[in-house]
Formats: sequence, structure tokens, C-alpha cells
Amino acid sequence: MTAYHDGSIRLAAFVTAGPGRPGGWRYAASESGWLDAEYYKHIARTLEHGLFDMAFFADILAVPDRYQASNDSQLRYGALGSLRLDPVVVLAIMASATRHLGLASTRSTSHYEPFEVARSFATLDHLSAGRAAWNVVTSFQDAEARNFSKGEQIPRHKRYDRADEFLEVVFKLWDSWDDDALVLDRETPLFADPDKVHYIDHKGEWFNVRGPLNVARPPQGYPVIIQAGASDRGRDFAAQWADVIFVSHDSLDSAKAFYRELKERAKAHGRDPRSLKILPAATPLVGETKAIIDSKRQTLSDLVNPHAGLSTLSYHLDVDLGLFPLDAPLPDVEVPGVQGHYQEVREATARDGLTLRELGKRYGSRYEGDFVGTPDRVADGLERWFREGAADGFTISAPHQPGGFEEFVRLVVPELQKRGLYRTQYEGKTLRDNLGLVRPQSGAWRAQAAKKHKVKEPT
Amino acid sequence: MTAYHDGSIRLAAFVTAGPGRPGGWRYAASESGWLDAEYYKHIARTLEHGLFDMAFFADILAVPDRYQASNDSQLRYGALGSLRLDPVVVLAIMASATRHLGLASTRSTSHYEPFEVARSFATLDHLSAGRAAWNVVTSFQDAEARNFSKGEQIPRHKRYDRADEFLEVVFKLWDSWDDDALVLDRETPLFADPDKVHYIDHKGEWFNVRGPLNVARPPQGYPVIIQAGASDRGRDFAAQWADVIFVSHDSLDSAKAFYRELKERAKAHGRDPRSLKILPAATPLVGETKAIIDSKRQTLSDLVNPHAGLSTLSYHLDVDLGLFPLDAPLPDVEVPGVQGHYQEVREATARDGLTLRELGKRYGSRYEGDFVGTPDRVADGLERWFREGAADGFTISAPHQPGGFEEFVRLVVPELQKRGLYRTQYEGKTLRDNLGLVRPQSGAWRAQAAKKHKVKEPT
Repeated sequence: MTAYHDGSIRLAAFVTAGPGRPGGWRYAASESGWLDAEYYKHIARTLEHGLFDMAFFADILAVPDRYQASNDSQLRYGALGSLRLDPVVVLAIMASATRHLGLASTRSTSHYEPFEVARSFATLDHLSAGRAAWNVVTSFQDAEARNFSKGEQIPRHKRYDRADEFLEVVFKLWDSWDDDALVLDRETPLFADPDKVHYIDHKGEWFNVRGPLNVARPPQGYPVIIQAGASDRGRDFAAQWADVIFVSHDSLDSAKAFYRELKERAKAHGRDPRSLKILPAATPLVGETKAIIDSKRQTLSDLVNPHAGLSTLSYHLDVDLGLFPLDAPLPDVEVPGVQGHYQEVREATARDGLTLRELGKRYGSRYEGDFVGTPDRVADGLERWFREGAADGFTISAPHQPGGFEEFVRLVVPELQKRGLYRTQYEGKTLRDNLGLVRPQSGAWRAQAAKKHKVKEPT
Repeated sequence: MTAYHDGSIRLAAFVTAGPGRPGGWRYAASESGWLDAEYYKHIARTLEHGLFDMAFFADILAVPDRYQASNDSQLRYGALGSLRLDPVVVLAIMASATRHLGLASTRSTSHYEPFEVARSFATLDHLSAGRAAWNVVTSFQDAEARNFSKGEQIPRHKRYDRADEFLEVVFKLWDSWDDDALVLDRETPLFADPDKVHYIDHKGEWFNVRGPLNVARPPQGYPVIIQAGASDRGRDFAAQWADVIFVSHDSLDSAKAFYRELKERAKAHGRDPRSLKILPAATPLVGETKAIIDSKRQTLSDLVNPHAGLSTLSYHLDVDLGLFPLDAPLPDVEVPGVQGHYQEVREATARDGLTLRELGKRYGSRYEGDFVGTPDRVADGLERWFREGAADGFTISAPHQPGGFEEFVRLVVPELQKRGLYRTQYEGKTLRDNLGLVRPQSGAWRAQAAKKHKVKEPT
């Protein structure tokens, strides 16, 4: 099989601006610095020292209360959605402590407006000299809609329609200043050339936006576009528009199937499949000896309350798992939420015969399989996924922050470098440079949209 | 007269994330670093070295095109609205380079949502350890509404209704976590006490927001609230809710009248008038000798094209001044925009018999009067305004960035210190500490709202 990558593993770090992996905040070596700028600066420097491509923050616009119709379990157990700072503010702090690290976060297309998202990421891209990335998501939680004065959720397919148009408006705004529009000629004077700054006059189903943006075209042309949806519509969106895909799998086999399918879809959209970087989630648990690893795994597992995991899973699936018996397996359910997570837990449930209680304890805190062990064993696992066509790299979660990242950088990164699988210095100046992605010319999204049209219409 | 201040001048800096004063970007010593993080870090460090209370960024959500129905003049001449980064991202960069400087920006109540504004400023307040401030504005420009999918502007009085309710929702969200809600007990475990995190269940005319916020209560309780409207409704809003007022005046007399009125209004709302800090705009032009000052003033004035000033004034007033003859005075007009700026230019026009062309050249770039001269003369002017009951301090603009701030800090600050009018070190840890403001208890806004009720209802 032709390799769909360029031989070099890419790494994103899944950092949380609040407690991360279930129980991780209770671990002795973890720090509770989520409200402190130094905490994020330290993580950013650690990741840059490990030559990571980027730090990434997910986002939730509410404290989830899907489980047992209450946010009690989220708050009590410090689950994923209990506390979440505004990720863009956190990224700006991280930008100021680093020179190469990419800076990625989620912004919802359901609850923000295209003008403000285009402007925030353009600002971050300028002030970081080309290191911004935006994870384009649709929001599905009632709890989020209720924080944004929306009585009802937009139906699922409509949310993607809105996301499609949202992204189109954002591209248009980023292109509203030509690359050479800012002249800064003090004599003439000519600050910006009015002929090179354009109204976009977008009129659509969801948005009417006149433009132009009041920020010059970003250094990367477009900040890096990330997508994380595993539904059919999400996959197609990603294959057409994403530079990077985040996804989680419970096995190498399902990861390979997903990887193959997405690369094929990208080709069908007329893209070079190497321009789409697929970075499955991995939570390495690494230690110098087997005894250390076993003890860490047990300790971390003991810190997880099943309700913490079920609470977060309820949020991800948008299903109240509190309605089912704790000591029976997860039944078949209709999932309005994240399809990828549902596939992942169904696979695990079926294979290992888990009860809901066991699933809750394990969800989001499973430490076994390919990424647990001594540094060479973890590198083996990453290498296998990379070489066997399941990944272009990984989105690394830390069992506890910041120690999980420190250990990975100290122990695993040198092992990957020894094998020639990972950079020994940053390749370029911008995040796109480091990911091996071209800088899109102004209007590049139009060319891509036109290809879609060609793909869809039978000829 | 009883002093309405505590004897110490407070200073905010009106910094621009884009070209500032008309023509200033063309000045030889100015820097064009608006797209570069180091530029803002340098300004932040300079201001902190000068013991400023805060750096402040205004905001516009469009490139204005009110003048001659075109944005040409804004872009060509580098007028105020030609380029504007997202101020909250810029403030986070500045936060990371400083320890004491307050971090203030505008966010529009017309085009943002309360949840996101509450979260952004709560995040900034945490990550800066209590230094955030929010300038609460209503937006009036058609160009802005058109970037946010709104066909029509909200009528003026409705915009204030929305702002009132917006602020109420934001206060509720900041209060949705009790001060001691975040427990971080790793043993029990108890991350946050669910009994101390509250749904807000706000249902109003403009917003339905359930809450809670997903960020703990800010270190300052509420980030500092700034208001800048000079209309009657704006004054009342400020007298009730603002910690700080920004305002611009063309003369000491109008400044005194405004100051007296606002302090009285604050009293009528049951507040200690000293808890409302009124900081009129000042653009000091300072130099070591008269020859230096004269030459700077002439040079700066020569760099201003009248269209640049008229373009910005058209935006501020929301009136197309391109419809009137350039060589006649500003006629009486109906002003849907900023009342304060209109009063300011009418006063100047009447006194000095200016034509529109002369007004355009002077608007936003007037360097004469009380704040121009050698350091002791500038200090004299500031002292006079302060002692005669026109100001609790000043919002300092720089004729050119960053040099204008550097000169002020080097030359004027020591002069103010010598006179005992200005701090020689920061008084406290948070912006509220330095401003001499109390930290509001949870629910403080309710007590204030109840006072309003008492004031308004005749008994």
C-alpha cells in the first residue's frame, strides 16, 4: 500500500483547561493549576521541548447535566465538563510562552458567530506568527443551548448545514484582505490598499455577513482546520475541509478502517490524502519499569468513580445512562451525540462483556493495550499504528496533568527519535509548515468547494 | 467641596490594536507592530513600569464605512477602525508579560452573548490573578450589525434595555459558583461542592440563560465594570453599575459638570461616589523643551489627512459627514451615535469657528491646551483637572505608539510622584485593589439593583 503519510509522526496534546482524565486530578503528582497562567505556560514549554506540533483544548459551553438529569456527578467527581476556561484565552497565554507550538481549540459553530470566530483565530494566528488551529464542531447538548437563549436544539442534519455555511463565511472573511493589502506606506500615505480589501456580501440560509474582517489575512492563510466528528456527515465534512482529524478508537482494526476510509474520501474530494492528517487519541501510560507501570495503573484506576465516567459518557452520547441498571451491560440506544464515542464503547463492551459500572470506571481512563509500558513498548505501539495505516500521528492525552506530558516527553519522544519516526527539530515557522501542509492561497476554499460539486454530480 | 476621590490619580492607557490617533502611524518614531505579540508585551511592560492601573482596548466589529458610504478613507489613511484585533486575545498576551497591570477591553452587548462574555472575562480574571475589566458597550453601527447577520439595528433605547439585561445575566453567571465552591479534596473526593454551584435560570426579554458558568467565581468577584456612554441613559447606567467611566471632553468646564453630575447620580443610586472612578481622556504631548514640543506638534498635525478624522468622526456620530461641504462648519445634525463625541466637537466648533475640513484634521489629533508641554506643564494640567473636580484620573492616549507611552512614563509620571499625586508602587494584588474598590460579594448586583428600585419609586 502506498503510504498516506510522509514518514514522520505528528503529535497533538489533548490538554484540558480543567480536570482531564477521570480521577487524574486526584493523583498525587497532578497539579490543580487550571486557574493559573503559569500552569499552562509550563505545559506549553514542556510540549515545545518535546517538539509537539500543537496543544489542543476541547470545549464545552455548559456543565453537562445529562447523567441523572443533574450536574452533581460532574462537579463532585471533577469530571470532564465540571470546569472549562475559555480556551482561546488560554491559548494566547501559551502562545506568549512558546515560539513553535501550535495552538488549537474548539469553537462551536452552533453558538458563536462566524465574524467573531474568524477574528479570534486570525488574531491568534497573527500574534503567534502562524500557529493557530480551529476545531470546527457542532454542539448538541441541551445544556449548552440553554446557556445561549435557545429553547430547542437545531436538528442534527441542520447543525451540519449551519457548520458548512459557518466555515464558508469564515473562509471568506479570512480571504477578505488580500495577502498584500496591508501596505503601511507612511509617505503616500497608504495604510491598506482599499482595492485589496473586499466586502464578502455573504447571504445564506444561516448567515448574512457583509465583511470585510477588520484583521489582515492570517499568516497561515487559513489557520489549520481540525475536525473531530465520526458520523457519516462528519466524515464527509472532514474529508473535504479538514487539515487534521481527531478521532478515538478502541482497537487498531477500527482505527485502520477509519483511516483508510477517510483517506479514500479525501481522494474522492480531489485532495492529496497526505494533506489530511489523522491523529487518533492515545493515552500513554509510561514508566521506567513494569512495577512502576503496574502500580501507576492500579492507583489511577482506583481513583475513578464509575459515576464520573458514566457522567461524561452520558454527555458525549447525549443519553442519560442513569436510566439503566448499573450491573448490566450498556443496552442498544439511540445516540444523538458523538457517534465515534458510541462505537468505541460498544466495541469495548462487546469484547470484554462489561457492565455499565465497569464501563463507567473504564471510560476515559483505560490504561492498557498498545500504549502502556516501558518507553520502548509504548514506542512500539505508536510505531505499529503508524506503520500499519491507522494513524499519521497521535493526539496524546495525559493520565494526569502536567506529569503525563512530562513523562511522555522525557521517555517516549527520544525513543521515537531514535527510530527516525519523529522530528529532532521543528521543520518550519508555522504550524502548517511543521505539519507539512501548504499555505492556502486566497480563495482556496472555493476551488475545494468546486471539487465537491464535481465529486457529487454523476458525469 | 468634599473630595470625591482619595487623593491619588488613577491612570488607564487607551491602547489600540491597530493604528491609533490619526496620522500617528506615519510618525517616524512609531512602530507598526499591531500584528506582533512583542509589540503588546512591550507596551504592557512600559505601562506597568509607569504603574498604570490598566491598559484598555476599545473595539469595533467592522471596518466603518459611514463616511462617503465607503471604507476607503478608513483603510487608506489608517484611521481608527481600519484594523482591530480581538482585544481579549491581545489582553491575554499582555497578561503573560506583566503582574500588576489591569487588562481592560470592550465587548459589545449587542452582538455577543452573555455566557461567552462572562466566561471570557472570568477566564482572563483567573489567569491574570484578578486584573480583568470589561467595558460594557452597546453597538450602533450598521456595518457591525451586518457582520452579525442582523438586517436592522435594534432601536437605541432597546439597545440599552438589552445591555441592562445582558449585564444582569453576566453578574448572575459570575455569581453562579460561590466563592468557596471549588473544594479540590482529593480524598473524599469532592472537586466542587454541587450545593455551591447554582443554576441561574434567567428568563428575560432578551435572554434565557440557565447556567451555571463552567468557570469558578472570578478572583475579583466581578471583573471591573467600565462604561463609556455619555447619553442620559448611558449616564444612568454608569452611575448605577460602573466602577470606572471613560469620557472625553473638550474643556475643563464640561469635564467638571459631567464629573459633578455623575457623582451625584451615583449617590442617588445609594453608592459611595468615590467608588465610581471617572477618567476623562487626555492625550499628553510632552517634550523636554518648548522647541521639541512645537516641532512634534507640527509634525504630527501635518501627518493627518482631514478625511481620516472625518471618517472616524462619521463613525462615532453614525452620520455621513461626507454629505456636507468641507469648507463650512459642522451643521446641526441628528446623532444616533456617541453623544459625548458630538458634544465635544460642537463645543470646539463653536468656540474656534472651525470648518468641517479643519475639524477633520483636528478630530482625534488635537495637541494643545492643558496636556501639552514640558513635563511640569503636563503635570500641572493633570493636577488642575484632578484638584478642581473634573477627574479621578485619566485615560491616556499616545500621539503615537509605543513612544507616546514611553515618554509619558519617563517624563510625566515622576513629576506626578514628586507632587504626591501618584503611587510609587502598586497598592494591592488585583485591579480592584489598585483602584481602591472593594471586591463585590456574591449577589452584590442584587443589592445595587434593589437600590435603583428605591431611587426610582417615589416614597
